[in-house]
Amino acid sequence: MRAPIDFYFDFSSPYGYLASQKIEPLAARHGRGVSWRPILLGAAFKVSGAGPLPSIPLKGEYSKRDFLRSARFHGVAFRIPDQFPISTLQACRAFYATPAEKRVPLARALFRAYFVDNVNIGEADNVLKIAGSLGLKPDLNDQVIKDKTRAEVDAAVARGVFGSPYVVVDGEPFWGMDRFDQLERWLREPF
Amino acid sequence: MRAPIDFYFDFSSPYGYLASQKIEPLAARHGRGVSWRPILLGAAFKVSGAGPLPSIPLKGEYSKRDFLRSARFHGVAFRIPDQFPISTLQACRAFYATPAEKRVPLARALFRAYFVDNVNIGEADNVLKIAGSLGLKPDLNDQVIKDKTRAEVDAAVARGVFGSPYVVVDGEPFWGMDRFDQLERWLREPF
Repeated sequence: MRAPIDFYFDFSSPYGYLASQKIEPLAARHGRGVSWRPILLGAAFKVSGAGPLPSIPLKGEYSKRDFLRSARFHGVAFRIPDQFPISTLQACRAFYATPAEKRVPLARALFRAYFVDNVNIGEADNVLKIAGSLGLKPDLNDQVIKDKTRAEVDAAVARGVFGSPYVVVDGEPFWGMDRFDQLERWLREPF
Repeated sequence: MRAPIDFYFDFSSPYGYLASQKIEPLAARHGRGVSWRPILLGAAFKVSGAGPLPSIPLKGEYSKRDFLRSARFHGVAFRIPDQFPISTLQACRAFYATPAEKRVPLARALFRAYFVDNVNIGEADNVLKIAGSLGLKPDLNDQVIKDKTRAEVDAAVARGVFGSPYVVVDGEPFWGMDRFDQLERWLREPF
């Protein structure tokens, strides 16, 4: 088994959500696992100077149309949540507070709650409810978890992660689900 | 013959150049022509607040790597020019000063000069030389041409164009060559 793919995403990123539906089978086709690494895009935006898509003139309007069309194109259930975008700090903490083997199911449940069921996962109560449905009780106020979350996000930005999804395979970075065609070729053979 | 595809691009945009190599056969497969519409990204950036990719922290470094990898992926000859990015005002004016049937060959020659032969097409002399090699003598100081260029760029921004390439088919916008898969499906049947 070769090194897993690093899969960075923000829980409030529509493209991150779409990518989360495709990354595992893509990796598996090439004998790879996936290391899921939620981040906080706001931290990357502080460095890159970018902002949330919906807030950008011209691009914001386009992006809403593109979210919906991309979801249809890829056959993924999706809606734009009423609260969008949101801070995903609590969702991130819940993820990093969870034992490794339960993290991916939790991430999928959080994404689904937000982008399918319109649940505001920016609120700690909702995050805890979703975690609870999986038998998890993350302590979102634990300082160790807070520190760990911050360290993960800082490490991602230090590595150059500036968007969601952002995938790194053997040191090669791929930003956006629309690079999954290049990612797939790269996994066959670097070019 | 159905309505042509509107193909917006900036002559200094690597992704616009890559797209220019693919758009005609793509359109032809669906019985469409292509209306080439060079713009000045700087005018769009004034509205969207964006800036040239290379100047953006994190994203800038990534984008250089992505330009080169994307060119290899699509099998298109490409280099990052020594002068990059540049103002393409003169190139744009030369395009709009040229009779319709010679515009696409001129656009291709300008792109090739810049992204293959490393000629700085930000300089009027170089633009005139390239035009001359096609038997063209655009008057870059003609006020009518200046006004026409400005009107084309303003109309594009008013239509919501904020990037390069940006394609509109029957009112549906597609930003980026990485939406050509969606564009192709849309041309078969809107979804």
